Amino acid sequence: MKEIKSFGIAGGDKRQLFLAKSISDNCYDVQLGGFEKLKSTGSLVLCDMKTMFAESDAIIFPVPSVRADHSINTPFSYESYYIDNEDILLIKNKPIFISMKENFLRAYPQLQSAELYDYSAEEEFAILNALPTAEGAIEVAMTEYEGTISGSKTLIVGYGRIGKLLSNKLKVLGSEVTVAARSKSDLAYIKALGYGVRNTNQLKSVKGFDMVFNTVPAKIFDKDLLMNTDRNTLIIDLASLPGGVDFEIAKQNKIDAVRALSLPGKTSPKTAGEIIKTVIFNIIEEVYR
Amino acid sequence: MKEIKSFGIAGGDKRQLFLAKSISDNCYDVQLGGFEKLKSTGSLVLCDMKTMFAESDAIIFPVPSVRADHSINTPFSYESYYIDNEDILLIKNKPIFISMKENFLRAYPQLQSAELYDYSAEEEFAILNALPTAEGAIEVAMTEYEGTISGSKTLIVGYGRIGKLLSNKLKVLGSEVTVAARSKSDLAYIKALGYGVRNTNQLKSVKGFDMVFNTVPAKIFDKDLLMNTDRNTLIIDLASLPGGVDFEIAKQNKIDAVRALSLPGKTSPKTAGEIIKTVIFNIIEEVYR
Amino acid sequence: MKEIKSFGIAGGDKRQLFLAKSISDNCYDVQLGGFEKLKSTGSLVLCDMKTMFAESDAIIFPVPSVRADHSINTPFSYESYYIDNEDILLIKNKPIFISMKENFLRAYPQLQSAELYDYSAEEEFAILNALPTAEGAIEVAMTEYEGTISGSKTLIVGYGRIGKLLSNKLKVLGSEVTVAARSKSDLAYIKALGYGVRNTNQLKSVKGFDMVFNTVPAKIFDKDLLMNTDRNTLIIDLASLPGGVDFEIAKQNKIDAVRALSLPGKTSPKTAGEIIKTVIFNIIEEVYR
Amino acid sequence: MKEIKSFGIAGGDKRQLFLAKSISDNCYDVQLGGFEKLKSTGSLVLCDMKTMFAESDAIIFPVPSVRADHSINTPFSYESYYIDNEDILLIKNKPIFISMKENFLRAYPQLQSAELYDYSAEEEFAILNALPTAEGAIEVAMTEYEGTISGSKTLIVGYGRIGKLLSNKLKVLGSEVTVAARSKSDLAYIKALGYGVRNTNQLKSVKGFDMVFNTVPAKIFDKDLLMNTDRNTLIIDLASLPGGVDFEIAKQNKIDAVRALSLPGKTSPKTAGEIIKTVIFNIIEEVYR
Repeated sequence: MKEIKSFGIAGGDKRQLFLAKSISDNCYDVQLGGFEKLKSTGSLVLCDMKTMFAESDAIIFPVPSVRADHSINTPFSYESYYIDNEDILLIKNKPIFISMKENFLRAYPQLQSAELYDYSAEEEFAILNALPTAEGAIEVAMTEYEGTISGSKTLIVGYGRIGKLLSNKLKVLGSEVTVAARSKSDLAYIKALGYGVRNTNQLKSVKGFDMVFNTVPAKIFDKDLLMNTDRNTLIIDLASLPGGVDFEIAKQNKIDAVRALSLPGKTSPKTAGEIIKTVIFNIIEEVYR
Repeated sequence: MKEIKSFGIAGGDKRQLFLAKSISDNCYDVQLGGFEKLKSTGSLVLCDMKTMFAESDAIIFPVPSVRADHSINTPFSYESYYIDNEDILLIKNKPIFISMKENFLRAYPQLQSAELYDYSAEEEFAILNALPTAEGAIEVAMTEYEGTISGSKTLIVGYGRIGKLLSNKLKVLGSEVTVAARSKSDLAYIKALGYGVRNTNQLKSVKGFDMVFNTVPAKIFDKDLLMNTDRNTLIIDLASLPGGVDFEIAKQNKIDAVRALSLPGKTSPKTAGEIIKTVIFNIIEEVYR
Repeated sequence: MKEIKSFGIAGGDKRQLFLAKSISDNCYDVQLGGFEKLKSTGSLVLCDMKTMFAESDAIIFPVPSVRADHSINTPFSYESYYIDNEDILLIKNKPIFISMKENFLRAYPQLQSAELYDYSAEEEFAILNALPTAEGAIEVAMTEYEGTISGSKTLIVGYGRIGKLLSNKLKVLGSEVTVAARSKSDLAYIKALGYGVRNTNQLKSVKGFDMVFNTVPAKIFDKDLLMNTDRNTLIIDLASLPGGVDFEIAKQNKIDAVRALSLPGKTSPKTAGEIIKTVIFNIIEEVYR
Repeated sequence: MKEIKSFGIAGGDKRQLFLAKSISDNCYDVQLGGFEKLKSTGSLVLCDMKTMFAESDAIIFPVPSVRADHSINTPFSYESYYIDNEDILLIKNKPIFISMKENFLRAYPQLQSAELYDYSAEEEFAILNALPTAEGAIEVAMTEYEGTISGSKTLIVGYGRIGKLLSNKLKVLGSEVTVAARSKSDLAYIKALGYGVRNTNQLKSVKGFDMVFNTVPAKIFDKDLLMNTDRNTLIIDLASLPGGVDFEIAKQNKIDAVRALSLPGKTSPKTAGEIIKTVIFNIIEEVYR
């Protein structure tokens, strides 16, 4: 990787705008392609995709990088943009930062041998995004629940990255928090931290909770469990698709269940953009070291 | 006050429904008048206003109790309802719980000598509502702000009931909190609790904050101060009307300013209804003691 | 008050040493009198009392300033020191900062007309000291109690300056906290903050608590209440003398009761000294304004 | 394992007394051997070791179970006790719960084929003990440090079981916490949780901290690092022997360094005893399942 003095941002939503701003604050030149709907973005340079490809030392594609039709994900653009052969020549010798590499290469196999870095595959990316996800889950809970978090009884299913942060935030806001997990070590941590404990494997009923947050990507809330869940419970499903709740059955049983996906991008695009920057800059630092 | 075995709920919004449910959970008979738009509310008895007046031992009017046109505040009703002379006879010898007594008596001076209790005038009512207000303010902040509370820099102007709870909640969510107050004792408490301190009297500029919460019912954010406030600051005005922000000037200066009023009723009607119950039951207990 | 360029510290314990260091860090000259037991204190100037009186622009006496025999409170000195007429002439036209003015003037009535400031009488002094007092109470609890604070059940009697901070600290450390208070507004705040609530006036028994912290300077834990207190309860009495616990009866009933007085000076002399500086500097600022 | 109706406690310190009490509260018969110094312990049965061995369904040895001279660890006994052949016959067919199996079997190889369970080897034991260890570390800090935790600047080296809990507790008490760790995922978590971050591998100097807690069992604070550590820093070494601080060099450099070992047993014997019970009962439950 050569020294990078300028970054090109190829499409994306508000996250990419905040990413661009944050990189610009670090005194790099930044050009944005694929934002024609915007008239101006302060000091950031808006240009067409080809100019940006040509003039930037490194290119950053958004989350997700490409759409199902292989066009670049450019919600701020009026038209779809497809990388053509000219573009390939412009960028194939530059560092290219992308998300979900497999999909990207399926769309543009010609870039197989390019200097590709999948920032979305870094563990750091997942950990850092757990914070805006947990906060976004609380925003959803505040919006959907008719009482206050303070004084509520909540159950979090799963004690991974999101469960760890979400349990802490709910507790400090005054909720009485129970966490369900599987591994002995997780169960011990949950006890040591003062939460109520449930074993996910033995979750036969969910009674006495105002809100339930599912973080486990498996059908935990199937028909059996939903038949044994209080009607006045609000279930917020944070698990990636297909999710952990049978929404059909939930509806039949008059249980309020909502799906909350991609929270960082939706509820905290600024933080989400800054996380992309942090991860990319750490990749660059490691390559150079 | 005679022993109360049944309560009548005269109109109101979702808060009154949760209030009714909470009273019913305490094993009192509850009848609701002025909710024709609802088909059913579980085990609660919906009836017409006159039946409710006749059959209840005590009557509870909502917040606010009456509208400007003197009709009862019945958003769940298709028509306006005015207390007539027949009603007066039915309720004048029963305990009547109302909000904003002055307005109520202006509408119905015939009830001047009735057994009226203004629950909204109790200090306890204001203190208990500070909690859903503070949480509601955080909901507004999460919705409006594009970053996360965690890691943000926030300023709270005023250290009264709301400022005390809001500063605590923002801090435990990871914000770097500064509080502006006037009295020496408030300033000392703010310092002792580890917040940044500003003197409201010397607030000549507001720089370096992501979000500002105003709780002081005085025009703190006037032209002078707004001219010295960062453009990318989000101001959330919690002060009752006319509020503490010159929204016109804020808009001109491209400062995001939003008004957040009556938060408990809007964001946490369940908690708000339960607070009304708590205050009314404490009034009853005091009268009996 | 003339401009002050140098401060003289007249005796005192470790607090005064930290006070001196903190003032010195603000670039004032500082001389200490009454510390003969110390060989050196870094960059601070140790001298005899008279030199210090003569050469300082302002004099600071410790907490307490004088002993029962009228000598200056100089625990770091081998001999007692009494202010003589020569000293009076040296200091009577300078700002003198003292604690407990009444006792001081009883010892030295000749200074009645001097420029005396009682920093210990400032409300700010009491509020700021509530923090090290609350933390000191937790230190005592950790030392005396054989379990962890986390998971314990605690009762705090009194919701004044210390009760407010102590309840918060115990809760964030994982204790299940109940607070007893008298006024309706205090009781409402306690409820809003999510603590258990008891009315001090109706405290007929204390059952189910691991630890009790009394902050009320009245005999709350008298024979009647101690007869209805669990034997395995640890009572920590933070109230100033004569205190709030009948220690004789407690001992007879095999209740562990300990007195914890003057905690800031004992457990956090650095913080206590810095608080004295803060209060004195605020007094100076107000006089000049 | 046959059904257990009675437990025998073989020696140990206060932890074993609280363990015995806690088991007794669950309605098991409990007999204690090796506590001759005690006259009575409430409802617990004190007897000689042999009687206890004979009459109990399961035996629990303390932490550590045996001394270097192979005697049972019985600090509450006047004499040393060695398990003899008669005892072996009494206990070899019963479940025996011990700590540090290797040492135990070195002393009593005849029990090699007995039904031994090393509760101290369970991960759950280590995780649950992290809580009293973290709280004990704060007790040591409060005792040794002359300021308050609130407002202090602290560094925690290591983000394992203890580091995770200690960082949280220090932060909620108002300290400005920085954590040093090595793995990328730990560093990301530390950042996500809002602490200051340092990379342990790049720890060349420790400046600007009031207190440092070392949890890493490696000589982190060697001569090089101690030469670049502020003199007024308090270092609390929580790492098991040989520890992580060169105390000799620290002393020469006038850095306050203290060793804090076996904190749960020393500062929270009640909690430590209850943890032993929890782990043993979970072992029993798993065997039966």
